[in-house]
Amino acid sequence: MKVAIIMGSISDMPVMQDAIDILKEFGVETEVDIVSAHRTPEKLFEFSTTAHTRGINVIIAGAGGAAHLPGMVASMSPLPVIGVPVKSSNSIDGWDSVLSILQMPGGVPVATVALNGAKNAGILATQILGSQDKTVQDKIVAYKQNLKEGVNKAAEGMKKQ
Amino acid sequence: MKVAIIMGSISDMPVMQDAIDILKEFGVETEVDIVSAHRTPEKLFEFSTTAHTRGINVIIAGAGGAAHLPGMVASMSPLPVIGVPVKSSNSIDGWDSVLSILQMPGGVPVATVALNGAKNAGILATQILGSQDKTVQDKIVAYKQNLKEGVNKAAEGMKKQ
Amino acid sequence: MKVAIIMGSISDMPVMQDAIDILKEFGVETEVDIVSAHRTPEKLFEFSTTAHTRGINVIIAGAGGAAHLPGMVASMSPLPVIGVPVKSSNSIDGWDSVLSILQMPGGVPVATVALNGAKNAGILATQILGSQDKTVQDKIVAYKQNLKEGVNKAAEGMKKQ
Amino acid sequence: MKVAIIMGSISDMPVMQDAIDILKEFGVETEVDIVSAHRTPEKLFEFSTTAHTRGINVIIAGAGGAAHLPGMVASMSPLPVIGVPVKSSNSIDGWDSVLSILQMPGGVPVATVALNGAKNAGILATQILGSQDKTVQDKIVAYKQNLKEGVNKAAEGMKKQ
Amino acid sequence: MKVAIIMGSISDMPVMQDAIDILKEFGVETEVDIVSAHRTPEKLFEFSTTAHTRGINVIIAGAGGAAHLPGMVASMSPLPVIGVPVKSSNSIDGWDSVLSILQMPGGVPVATVALNGAKNAGILATQILGSQDKTVQDKIVAYKQNLKEGVNKAAEGMKKQ
Amino acid sequence: MKVAIIMGSISDMPVMQDAIDILKEFGVETEVDIVSAHRTPEKLFEFSTTAHTRGINVIIAGAGGAAHLPGMVASMSPLPVIGVPVKSSNSIDGWDSVLSILQMPGGVPVATVALNGAKNAGILATQILGSQDKTVQDKIVAYKQNLKEGVNKAAEGMKKQ
Amino acid sequence: MKVAIIMGSISDMPVMQDAIDILKEFGVETEVDIVSAHRTPEKLFEFSTTAHTRGINVIIAGAGGAAHLPGMVASMSPLPVIGVPVKSSNSIDGWDSVLSILQMPGGVPVATVALNGAKNAGILATQILGSQDKTVQDKIVAYKQNLKEGVNKAAEGMKKQ
Amino acid sequence: MKVAIIMGSISDMPVMQDAIDILKEFGVETEVDIVSAHRTPEKLFEFSTTAHTRGINVIIAGAGGAAHLPGMVASMSPLPVIGVPVKSSNSIDGWDSVLSILQMPGGVPVATVALNGAKNAGILATQILGSQDKTVQDKIVAYKQNLKEGVNKAAEGMKKQ
Repeated sequence: MKVAIIMGSISDMPVMQDAIDILKEFGVETEVDIVSAHRTPEKLFEFSTTAHTRGINVIIAGAGGAAHLPGMVASMSPLPVIGVPVKSSNSIDGWDSVLSILQMPGGVPVATVALNGAKNAGILATQILGSQDKTVQDKIVAYKQNLKEGVNKAAEGMKKQ
Repeated sequence: MKVAIIMGSISDMPVMQDAIDILKEFGVETEVDIVSAHRTPEKLFEFSTTAHTRGINVIIAGAGGAAHLPGMVASMSPLPVIGVPVKSSNSIDGWDSVLSILQMPGGVPVATVALNGAKNAGILATQILGSQDKTVQDKIVAYKQNLKEGVNKAAEGMKKQ
Repeated sequence: MKVAIIMGSISDMPVMQDAIDILKEFGVETEVDIVSAHRTPEKLFEFSTTAHTRGINVIIAGAGGAAHLPGMVASMSPLPVIGVPVKSSNSIDGWDSVLSILQMPGGVPVATVALNGAKNAGILATQILGSQDKTVQDKIVAYKQNLKEGVNKAAEGMKKQ
Repeated sequence: MKVAIIMGSISDMPVMQDAIDILKEFGVETEVDIVSAHRTPEKLFEFSTTAHTRGINVIIAGAGGAAHLPGMVASMSPLPVIGVPVKSSNSIDGWDSVLSILQMPGGVPVATVALNGAKNAGILATQILGSQDKTVQDKIVAYKQNLKEGVNKAAEGMKKQ
Repeated sequence: MKVAIIMGSISDMPVMQDAIDILKEFGVETEVDIVSAHRTPEKLFEFSTTAHTRGINVIIAGAGGAAHLPGMVASMSPLPVIGVPVKSSNSIDGWDSVLSILQMPGGVPVATVALNGAKNAGILATQILGSQDKTVQDKIVAYKQNLKEGVNKAAEGMKKQ
Repeated sequence: MKVAIIMGSISDMPVMQDAIDILKEFGVETEVDIVSAHRTPEKLFEFSTTAHTRGINVIIAGAGGAAHLPGMVASMSPLPVIGVPVKSSNSIDGWDSVLSILQMPGGVPVATVALNGAKNAGILATQILGSQDKTVQDKIVAYKQNLKEGVNKAAEGMKKQ
Repeated sequence: MKVAIIMGSISDMPVMQDAIDILKEFGVETEVDIVSAHRTPEKLFEFSTTAHTRGINVIIAGAGGAAHLPGMVASMSPLPVIGVPVKSSNSIDGWDSVLSILQMPGGVPVATVALNGAKNAGILATQILGSQDKTVQDKIVAYKQNLKEGVNKAAEGMKKQ
Repeated sequence: MKVAIIMGSISDMPVMQDAIDILKEFGVETEVDIVSAHRTPEKLFEFSTTAHTRGINVIIAGAGGAAHLPGMVASMSPLPVIGVPVKSSNSIDGWDSVLSILQMPGGVPVATVALNGAKNAGILATQILGSQDKTVQDKIVAYKQNLKEGVNKAAEGMKKQ
C-alpha cells in the first residue's frame, strides 16, 4: 500500500510536509513529487494515467490559487484523490484555492480537506487504506484515542493552574 | 463491502438520492438512514462508534446550514467520512454548509465534495473501495470512459447542427 | 447560579479568558473546562446531558474553524448555550467559525456573539441570570452606566487636547 | 414571565411569526410590537429603557438590511436581547442583516440566531426563562424528545419505502 | 457653516483624524466629539435631534463592527449624514462596518464612503457645503487641480529615472 | 436648485425611477439623462465638467456591475455625487456594483447608498439641498414625521388583529 | 485569422453562443467544439498543443464551477486564451467559476472576462486580431460608435416620454 | 510592436514593475506612464483615444480599490486592454479591485488577470503580439519550456534531499 503526495510547486512544501509526516507516523509508504498542472502538463498526464498501475492506492494533491492539480489528476486516475487547498501568496484569502478544488463537476470528485489541511489529508489517506485493512484501521483507532488523551491532559493541566 | 449513506433530515433526500443511485449503478451495497446530529445525538453516537464493526467501509454524510453531522461522525468513526454540503432552505447561499463541513481541525478529516455533490460522493466512495479492489477500480475506469464518450457524442451532435 | 465556560482547545484560552474575567467581575460563579467535540465526543455527551443537573444555568462554548462544539452542546442540553466563534489559525478569516455556530437548524438555537466576542458572552450570560434576578440585573445596569461614563471621560479628554 | 417580540417593520412579520407561534406552544406570555430604530427612535428609546420595569424578561428583536434594532435595544436595556437577522428584500443575501446584528462591540451583546431563525429565537427565549425555572426547562426537555421522535419516525418511514 | 465629526470610540480617532485635517485644509469649521450609539444612547439622541439647530450643516460619523452610529444619527437628524466604515480590531475584514452603514432602509439614507475613507468624508462634506456656495466650490475645483498636478509630477519623476 | 439624475443604461430606469419620484414629492427640480461611462465617454466628460455651471447642485448616478459612472463623474465635477449601486442582471449578487462605487480612492468621494437604494439617493440629495436651506430642511423633518406615523399606524393595526 | 471557441459542456452553450454570434457579426472565422478538461483530458491535450499549428490565433474557453478548462488550455498553448466564467447550476453564485479561471499562477495567464461574459470574450478576441490588423481594428472602432449611438437614441427616447 | 503599461498611482509601481520586467525579458518595446482615471481624467481621455494611433498594440492598466482605469481606457480605445487588479492599501482584501475591473458590461471587455498578476499581464500581452507573429510566439513556446524545466529541476532537487 502506497500513498502518492504531489504538489504544484516547491513553495507548497511547508504546508504539504504535514501530510508526509503523519503518513510516516502511521507507517504508510509514500512517494513525493512536484507535478505542476500548468507548467508540466505532460508529467501531469503521465503521473495521473499510470499511478494506479504502479501500486499507488491514494493520491494527495496540494495546490494554491486557481488550483487545478487535484481536479486534473482526478480526471485521469481511477484512484481516490485528496485535494489540499494551499493558502499561497497569490491566493485571495484562500477562497480561490478552496473553490477551485472543491467545486468539481458531477463525475469527477476530489476529496477536499480544509485550507492548508495537509495533515488531515494524510489521516484521510490512512483511513482510506484502513477501510479494507484492519491493521491500518486499528492505528486510526489508536490515533483517536491519543487525541482524546491529549485534550484530557490539557484540561487537567488547565484546572491545576 | 458496504457504504452507509446518512443525512441530517428527510429534506436532504432529494440531494442525497444521487449518491444512492450512482452506488446502485456501480453495484455497491448501501445502507441508508437519517441521523440528525442536533436532534438524535444518541443515534449519532451509536451509529458512529459501531459502523466499522458492522461491515461498513465508507460513510457518506449529507447536511445543510451549520452542518455538524459529517464532522461529528468523523470524530467517532475510524472510517473515511465523505461530507456532502447541502444547500438547504436555511442556508446562506450554501457557504455555511460548505465551511462547517470542510474546515475540520487537524486530526479529524472529512472528505468534502462540492455543494449538493452527492453523486460525486457516491463515486468517491466507490473509488475508495476500488483503491484496494481491482474489480471495483475497473468499474471506475469504465465509468470515466463512458463520460468521455458522452462528451464526444455531444461534440459531434453539436457539429452536425 | 453558575456559568460553565468550555472551549474546544487549550489554544482558544486567550480569547475565552475574557468571558471568565468579566464573569468574575460580576461575581458570577464559573466552571471552566476543555471539551472537544471532535476529540472527546464522550466527554461532550457527558457534559451536555448533565450540565443542567449540576446547578449550571448557562453554558458558554467557544470554538474555531468548523466549530461544532456550541451546536452539539445545544443539541443535548436544555440550557441556553452561548457560542463564541473563535478566529483560530485554521480559520478562513473567521467566516467558518461564525457560520458553523450561527446557522443552527430550527429547533436547536445557539446564542451567537461576535467573532472573538468572549467578553460579550460573559455579559450575556450575566444578563440571562439577571433576567429573573433583580440583584444581578442591577449589576448590568451599573455596568452600562460605567460604559457611558468611560465614553464621556474619553470625550472630555479629547476636547481638552 | 414575559417575552417581548419586536420587529423593525410590518414586513418582517412573516418571519417573526415563527417566534410568536413557538412561544405560544411553550405557553410563554408574549407582547408583540413594531419598533423601528430608524423611523421611531423615540419609541425605541421608550421601549428599551422601560421593558425590564414592565415585567419583561427577554426581548426578541428582528430586523433586516442595516439591522440596528437589536443592538440599539441592547444598548439601553439590561435584559438579554435575542437578534433575528431577517433576509428582507433590501438585503444583500442576508449578509448585512447578519453582520450588523452579530458584530456588536465589547460591552453590548446581542444573542444572534440564524438568518430568518425566529423559531430558534423563541426557543432560546424559553431556554433563558427555563434556566432558572424547572417547569419551563422540563418543556424544553420534552420538546427535544419530540424532535428526536420526529426524526426517528421519518427514518422508519424512509426505510419502509 | 460647520461640520460635526463624531465617532463611536476614541479608538476610531487615528482613522477619523483624516477628516478633521482635510476640513481644516479647506478652512471649514469643525466640531469633534465621541458619541457611542451603544454606550451613550442619550447623548446620541441629544446630539442627533439638536445638531441642525446649532448651526451644523453636515455630520460625519465614523464607527466599526456593527456600526450603528451613522444610521442612528441619520434616523433623527434632517442633516446629510456621511458614514465612515472603520476597519476596527473587532471587525471581520471591514465587511461588517461597511454593510451596517451602507445598507440603510428606504427613508433614512447614509452617505457612505470607502472603508477607512475619513479623508473622503471631509471632502464630501466640503462638496456639500460648496453645492450652494461658490467660494467653497472653488476650493474643491482647486483641490482637484492639485491632485492632477501631483499625478503629473509623479509621472514626470518616474520617466526621468 | 436642481438635482441631476443620470444612469449608465436605460435598463437601470426601473431602479432609478424611485429617485425621480421622491424628488418630485419633495418638489425638487430634476434633470434626467442616460450617460454611459463605457459607451458614451465624451458625453460623460461633457456632463461632468459642466454640470456645476448649469445650475445643478447635486448629481445622482446609478450603475451596475463594474459601475464606473458615479466615480468618473466625481473625478470631474466639484459637486457632491451620490452613487446608487444597481443590482443588474450582469452583477454578482450586487457586490461588484457596491464595491466599484464605494471604494473610491482618497481625494474623490462618492456618497454611496444601499444596493438599489435610489429612493434614499433622492432623499439624501434633498437633505444636501436642505443643509443650507431651511424650507427644504423642514420638508425632511416633515418626511421623517410621516415615516414615524406610518410605523405607528402599522403597529396599531397589528395589535387590533 | 481564426478564433476557436470551446466549452466544458454542452450545457455551457446558451452562454457561449454570445461569443459565436458577435464573432460572426465581426466576420471573424470561428471553430466551435466541446472539450472537457475533466472528462476528455486527451482531447484537451490534443487541442491545446496543436491549436496554434492549425491557423488559430485566439482561443475562447468557457466553463463553470471548478472551471479548469481555460487554465489548462493556457498551460499548453502559446496562444492568448480568453476565459469565460459560466454561472452554471453547480456553481456557488459564480464565485467558483470566476476564481478558478482568474487566479492563475505566474507564468500562465488567462484573459478573464465577466461572469457569463461570452459576448465580451468575442469582442476581446476581435480586438486581439485587430491589434495588428487595421481592417479588423476599424470594425471595433465602428462597433464602439454604434454602442454610443444606441445610448444616445435611448437617452433621446427617454426624454421624449 | 509596442505595449503601453499604465497605472493609476505611483504606489502601484511595485506591483506593475513585474509587467515591465517580463516584457523586457521578451524583448518587447514598452511605454510606461501614470494615468489616473480619477485625478487626471483629461490625460485618460487623451491617452485612450490616441494610443492605437501611436503604434501601440496592447495596453496594460493596473489599479486598486474602485479600479476604473482599465475599464475606462477600454471604453475609448479599440486596442485590447489587460487589467491588473492591484491589492492596494485602500482595498478590501482585493475584492473591490478584482470586481471593478472584471465585471465590465457587454460591449467593453477588459482582459483581467489575477490579483497583483502584473507578470501574467506582460506574458498575455506578449501572447497577443505572438498570435500573429511567429517569432514572438516562439519566445512564448520557449518560455513555457523553461517553466517546465524549472519545475523538473525543483522536483529532482527535492528527491535528492
